[in-house]
Amino acid sequence: MCGIVGYTGRRVSSEVLLQGLRRLEYRGYDSAGIAIGNGDSLSVVKRPGKIKDLTEAVPDTLKGNYGIGHTRWATHGVVNEINAHPHTDVSGKIAICHNGIIENYMALKEMLISEGYSFVSETDSEVIAHLIAYNYQGDIAAAVQTSLPLLKGTYGIVCIHADEPGRIIGARNGSPLVIGVGEDEMFLASDTTAVLAYTKQAVYLEDGEIVLIDPEGFKIVDAANREIQKRIDTISWELDQIEKDGFQYYMEKEIREQPESILRAFQGRLNRDAGTAHLGGLNMGPQELINLERVSIIAAGTSYYAGLVGAYLLEGVARLPATADLSSEIRYRNPVVEKNSLHFAVSQSGETIDTLFALRELQRKGAKVLGICNVVGSTIARESDGGTYIHSGPEIAVASTKAFTSQITVFYLFTLLMARMRHMSWDQGLEFINALESVPDKVAKVLEGTEHIRSLAEKYSDAKNFLFLGRGINYPVALEGALKLKEISYIHAEGFSSAEIKHGPIALINEETPSVFIVPDDHLRDKVVSNMKEVKARDGKVIALAVEGDAEVAAIADDTIFVPKTHELFYPYVMVVPLQMFAYYMALKLGRDVDQPRNLAKSVTVE
Amino acid sequence: MCGIVGYTGRRVSSEVLLQGLRRLEYRGYDSAGIAIGNGDSLSVVKRPGKIKDLTEAVPDTLKGNYGIGHTRWATHGVVNEINAHPHTDVSGKIAICHNGIIENYMALKEMLISEGYSFVSETDSEVIAHLIAYNYQGDIAAAVQTSLPLLKGTYGIVCIHADEPGRIIGARNGSPLVIGVGEDEMFLASDTTAVLAYTKQAVYLEDGEIVLIDPEGFKIVDAANREIQKRIDTISWELDQIEKDGFQYYMEKEIREQPESILRAFQGRLNRDAGTAHLGGLNMGPQELINLERVSIIAAGTSYYAGLVGAYLLEGVARLPATADLSSEIRYRNPVVEKNSLHFAVSQSGETIDTLFALRELQRKGAKVLGICNVVGSTIARESDGGTYIHSGPEIAVASTKAFTSQITVFYLFTLLMARMRHMSWDQGLEFINALESVPDKVAKVLEGTEHIRSLAEKYSDAKNFLFLGRGINYPVALEGALKLKEISYIHAEGFSSAEIKHGPIALINEETPSVFIVPDDHLRDKVVSNMKEVKARDGKVIALAVEGDAEVAAIADDTIFVPKTHELFYPYVMVVPLQMFAYYMALKLGRDVDQPRNLAKSVTVE
Repeated sequence: MCGIVGYTGRRVSSEVLLQGLRRLEYRGYDSAGIAIGNGDSLSVVKRPGKIKDLTEAVPDTLKGNYGIGHTRWATHGVVNEINAHPHTDVSGKIAICHNGIIENYMALKEMLISEGYSFVSETDSEVIAHLIAYNYQGDIAAAVQTSLPLLKGTYGIVCIHADEPGRIIGARNGSPLVIGVGEDEMFLASDTTAVLAYTKQAVYLEDGEIVLIDPEGFKIVDAANREIQKRIDTISWELDQIEKDGFQYYMEKEIREQPESILRAFQGRLNRDAGTAHLGGLNMGPQELINLERVSIIAAGTSYYAGLVGAYLLEGVARLPATADLSSEIRYRNPVVEKNSLHFAVSQSGETIDTLFALRELQRKGAKVLGICNVVGSTIARESDGGTYIHSGPEIAVASTKAFTSQITVFYLFTLLMARMRHMSWDQGLEFINALESVPDKVAKVLEGTEHIRSLAEKYSDAKNFLFLGRGINYPVALEGALKLKEISYIHAEGFSSAEIKHGPIALINEETPSVFIVPDDHLRDKVVSNMKEVKARDGKVIALAVEGDAEVAAIADDTIFVPKTHELFYPYVMVVPLQMFAYYMALKLGRDVDQPRNLAKSVTVE
Repeated sequence: MCGIVGYTGRRVSSEVLLQGLRRLEYRGYDSAGIAIGNGDSLSVVKRPGKIKDLTEAVPDTLKGNYGIGHTRWATHGVVNEINAHPHTDVSGKIAICHNGIIENYMALKEMLISEGYSFVSETDSEVIAHLIAYNYQGDIAAAVQTSLPLLKGTYGIVCIHADEPGRIIGARNGSPLVIGVGEDEMFLASDTTAVLAYTKQAVYLEDGEIVLIDPEGFKIVDAANREIQKRIDTISWELDQIEKDGFQYYMEKEIREQPESILRAFQGRLNRDAGTAHLGGLNMGPQELINLERVSIIAAGTSYYAGLVGAYLLEGVARLPATADLSSEIRYRNPVVEKNSLHFAVSQSGETIDTLFALRELQRKGAKVLGICNVVGSTIARESDGGTYIHSGPEIAVASTKAFTSQITVFYLFTLLMARMRHMSWDQGLEFINALESVPDKVAKVLEGTEHIRSLAEKYSDAKNFLFLGRGINYPVALEGALKLKEISYIHAEGFSSAEIKHGPIALINEETPSVFIVPDDHLRDKVVSNMKEVKARDGKVIALAVEGDAEVAAIADDTIFVPKTHELFYPYVMVVPLQMFAYYMALKLGRDVDQPRNLAKSVTVE
């Protein structure tokens, strides 16, 4: 979603900002812009479209060494140059970039218009620039401080004033902001990837904090203007991790990293001697764990589907009643938080606003919420009561792949821990460990067979609709496979429990609507085969994901992708990877921008 | 799904059977056939397609007065004349019709082939005819009795033998079968509507029971051949209720019945003096009700969406933690049944096999399961531990409409009862009652405005994809609106929480993919309006369902359907009805067979 970067120091700031914005491209955007301090005025350049369009529009003469930049994902107002950020006040001296949504912008706009301010854009954000101008009395930090209490909604803001060169003010409420600490130069960004090329020293802002940076350093205050001392963290990612590494798209790179990323998610967390798992960050003692009676998982998008796998495992294997809910829904549902319950908030970025807000609402009701995040130091990781990092490394492609398999790995580990504390024997635990440890090799084997998947994607690339069908623990995998196809190929694919299609969706089946069936050799196989026959009896084309050697399924299906035989519980790994590759090749064939699909953003930071 | 009818008496049986099959058309089918006893042989006529095609193929000379008929919904083998039922043995003396799936048919087929039997169809069902022939030693009832233990799977079977004129054998395991008791004539059917024109006296078979009928009467035995005495029930429906009553399609008739059917669902169940509801069939005392700690709802298709509304109400209003699950999934998930929990099985027909099997599995685990059914005497109604009929009257159209609004009405009533036993005050209960009692008039008002909905359906009839978006209690309504459109117009429509589209589905949005937004004036309205703006910013067309007077929403949306202002909790009623009509008009415009959409069956009686 929208991205922010700010720079002050000795370099040509436009170069730093454009480089930072390129690093933020992966988050999803539709326009971009920069504002550069230039003597006692500001120069603003904005463009709809890609960063390269913006780069071409920036004149070489723009040498100022402080400024702010922004990638916009449209919420209020269409995609055009005027609606792009930065926004300026009437004098052109103040420029701001804003992530989030100002919910009371209409009321503020009317107030400011009545005071004589004129607006040029359709955005909610422009009101911030005018409001700061309205409150400006020679000190930009004070003007921001005075303006913030009037804003209702969420924001990450950066602001500069032409009369105070070298200074950037940042403030956050709900949208992330991080300070990059350099030598005689300072950065502000919505995301550490924007500054990783310059510094690995970072300070994460909390909601309600306001920061002033200049080349010499930073100062953080709270809403009452009391200074706050904060620790400087070291960013654990390396610059080369956010490079494409020879691949055409980040997405393929990340899919192919999965044998290693899955390994990293369980490495050091299994104890063969004890036949169990240990997860360091839970912050829960054995008595608290044994007393658990219920697990509730909250998440959105792909993380939600990982949560559905987790709920299936926890209830089915650990016999701990478990549900997964959309965080956007649970937040406003006034949920009942029960005693001896545990909540997990799952988010790759750790910044997903629906999940963050749900986490806070659940905490207000007394819930214990653990985070399952990828980005170290992210807001959800910080605000949760404990949790586990998935250690996937940076995920840059908008369509999440390796994060999914790592998120479910954490649930496999927690399930093992819970089951072993309850009814599972040591040898059963060991069997579970063996199965989990064999996953990376099996996924690697799946990835060797991708040429066949490419040919199927090309064969079916004319289809306008797809159904993805699975049951049991592979039902969420079907949902995830459909989501991947939607996200990057824009083909309308929908996932169902294969048992459920007779209750309506089978009406969509004809020779033009293919179905992708997930057919593991588990206790549900024969039922799924019956469902395949029902689709075939209605002239539907069937692509089956079947276990090597399953000739019966291959005889029924039009096309079959074979996956290695696996422990019954562990099929989600070997089934989801072919679906990721299928979506990838389909998008390639259709000429889509795989890493930055239309309309989408990497981490959703507005409600 | 497949339908069965059998007749023995003094009439021309082909006329009775064809009339019965016409009554079963609504269940969904793709081919049909009859077998008539004719002297000492059987005459079989079968056709793919509609009953009228079959009727035209039946010669006038076919005067025999016993026989069996079938409508087939293909599971194993394509739709053609050979695969249609009845199936006969090699001699042509034995004919059977079968509903359900024989899971071990391949093994039985191989055994019978090795014994010299030759097969002609691709179906699983044909094996039954040969197996009975294999076991036949002059007594068809005995041959059926001997054959049944060899069948693995589900079945409702009827069988005749040319050498035993006037006799029909029926047997059930998982698929419904009912005896229609006439004077000097007897009937067997999968559904009472097939015999309602002749008799209102019915005996419902249970699993494991075998029946022999002849014109004089019926005899029911169990698997050990012990005779079973059963009560004769009176069918409560009237023949005119299953007529179209001047409407072009049952679906429109049933949509327009909702002011009355909703009223019937709550009439006599509200107590204004006490400010609460009473539901007679729960079979639970006050102590049991007050001790409840959890509600789990199981259902499929539209009933599942009604269950999601129910879960929202029970948790949100009665503060009783509640979930809704797909019955096909919960059955195989090895669910944890908790103490002080209550389960509801929701099924219009009371025969939905996924829900029936889930009910049985939950009961085995000690669960108390109440049924919410429409069809009196249906299997789920009989096997549940209590429950509530929704009293919608017969629902004939495949796409469920009035059953949905009646099912949610039962959940409103149960929520009121639970909330009043807990924290809800008398006056709050009265407010709830007032809101519920005002629903029929509001729905009637919505139904007055359907010409505008028709014009919108026509305007958008070129769209190949739709998104349906709602939040909170109206999120299941969005799912249901999308399902209706899928079912009868074959347009790929998908429902989402409007907050969730940014996590992937918004990639589908362009000027060709309209979104239908449900925008009540509740606490989520402003969030939904923001989501609408995000779609508009990406050139998506928006149809809004908004509350009368909401000019802001109308200004943003391309088209608006206004609904009457309603108590915040009761919007599902006034929001779902326009979506039903929208789907109906869309299907009309596209020339679909509204009441019998392709591939679908009214009640899903195979897994």
